[in-house]
Amino acid sequence: MTPRITLLAGGVGGAKLAEGLSAICPPERLSIIGNVADDQEFHGLWVSPDIDTLTYSLADLIDRQQGWGLAGESHRVLAGLERLGCDTWMSLGDQDIATHIFRTQLRRQGVRPSAIAQSIAESLGIGTKLLLPTDDPLQTRVRTDQGWLAFQEYFVRERCRPEVREVHFEGATEACPTPEALEAIETADLLLIAPSNPVVSIAPILAVPGIRHAIEKSLAPRVAISPLIGGCTVKGPADRMLTAMGYRCSNTGVAASYAGLIDGLVIDSIDRTDRTALEAEGLQVMTTDTLMTCLEEKARLAEETLAFASACRRVEAET
Amino acid sequence: MTPRITLLAGGVGGAKLAEGLSAICPPERLSIIGNVADDQEFHGLWVSPDIDTLTYSLADLIDRQQGWGLAGESHRVLAGLERLGCDTWMSLGDQDIATHIFRTQLRRQGVRPSAIAQSIAESLGIGTKLLLPTDDPLQTRVRTDQGWLAFQEYFVRERCRPEVREVHFEGATEACPTPEALEAIETADLLLIAPSNPVVSIAPILAVPGIRHAIEKSLAPRVAISPLIGGCTVKGPADRMLTAMGYRCSNTGVAASYAGLIDGLVIDSIDRTDRTALEAEGLQVMTTDTLMTCLEEKARLAEETLAFASACRRVEAET
Repeated sequence: MTPRITLLAGGVGGAKLAEGLSAICPPERLSIIGNVADDQEFHGLWVSPDIDTLTYSLADLIDRQQGWGLAGESHRVLAGLERLGCDTWMSLGDQDIATHIFRTQLRRQGVRPSAIAQSIAESLGIGTKLLLPTDDPLQTRVRTDQGWLAFQEYFVRERCRPEVREVHFEGATEACPTPEALEAIETADLLLIAPSNPVVSIAPILAVPGIRHAIEKSLAPRVAISPLIGGCTVKGPADRMLTAMGYRCSNTGVAASYAGLIDGLVIDSIDRTDRTALEAEGLQVMTTDTLMTCLEEKARLAEETLAFASACRRVEAET
Repeated sequence: MTPRITLLAGGVGGAKLAEGLSAICPPERLSIIGNVADDQEFHGLWVSPDIDTLTYSLADLIDRQQGWGLAGESHRVLAGLERLGCDTWMSLGDQDIATHIFRTQLRRQGVRPSAIAQSIAESLGIGTKLLLPTDDPLQTRVRTDQGWLAFQEYFVRERCRPEVREVHFEGATEACPTPEALEAIETADLLLIAPSNPVVSIAPILAVPGIRHAIEKSLAPRVAISPLIGGCTVKGPADRMLTAMGYRCSNTGVAASYAGLIDGLVIDSIDRTDRTALEAEGLQVMTTDTLMTCLEEKARLAEETLAFASACRRVEAET
């Protein structure tokens, strides 16, 4: 029987592994906890980029070229908003805006954000549980050489050009974890961390009180897939952000960012020389091709990761 | 110098005369008071059909074929909402939805609805003042053989098929008139009522406390253009609604619905035999071609109406 798998995932990279796992696991055995700290309101609509990327990927509706947004999008609403004098640097497609309108309406009606995410996923035919770490406000803020920016301002408007000096998760201290996310961690047979940005995709999930502790005390093997290949990210600013946070921009830096939370790390074959250093830190290591360019590669990496994780020895927590 | 003109107007028919007036008047001499009682929230967005029809018409962006909505519309957002399980009987185009998103955001920020309407009009290049009768909630409710319906439910979803028994303007008693609408009535040299539905387009404007009284005590000549041609409406259910309200479905019925509020009535040449009956009621009458199928016809009717209204004798108010 397939083990119960819980995956922590960010946007584009996380969604790729989520797709791979979804291709090989029965939906009821897989739970995915996504990142909500990139959420931002645009034009009064609540936009949840990482959750939407996961949803659209799992529903096979994603724009494969860009890795986010819906395939075959148009931008008529955005053009209309621009005509009315609105700032339209955040690219929002027309079909995508339907999701934001739907989400915003339900939020205003008081529906829990995690129930909304699950309802959207179900409407789009997704059987896997798509969970939010918290239903409370949680916002990544980035201090740069241009001052404090909301994450999407840094990421989309400024195209990651400002130098990052500090990352803060606003609301983290007060946020409550969702019971579904805690349960998915507590009951998991395998805990996985997707090849996502450790600093702004995974860290905000871990910043929700109770989530980190639940992972620490879980008895399941815990395995992360490194988002770095040859010291670089496939997409996004994870490399620069690791450096900014004082980690090495390497697999040992990724491992350090997950200290106490993982037993094993999957790294790319190109980085096989990192194995010794990682093992010296007490980590179990698997090397394989981690670049996922098609569903077959996603499923193969998922399969190999599951086999590796199942065989992983749970490192004793220091207590 | 062009007189100061204030027009009370509903949607499609009203917008045609508004266009005609706008074509021949300097923008600062023309004020249009639109109908907000057809407004309704869809998918959490505030939709204002009559105001949008006026705006899009005056901005020359209207879909000329259907008389409402924007030209060259697509419906991607609506398709997205349908996929998420939403009821999508209210046709909302993508560019149009930009207007609703913009309006909703500003309303939630506490901006006065009339300031929003004016701002949208200005963004679309309209110089004329587009005024709302009230900034307060005002909703046309229609009692039919199927029970009470919101106006758009009756008009769009049920396509005016249910038999109308009663019309109620919810919120009218508590609504405050906007100072701009009152001022436009009080300072007008000519007061016009567009060829709109007297029962559900003009009556809700008049139902706002203070508006009817301001028209009654104005010293300006007051002229309505009948929406009926040969006892029928060009579009919409005005004929059936007049009957339902106990008025005759004729120009005398239209005149009766405006009793005490107009000095003159413009009727179609085809109805010239109505003149005697109308004059017997103390009304001054002009007959002309009132069907407006192109801008030239709109401008001609506007021009003739202004000439007629300027020559109209103000009937003494009964006090």
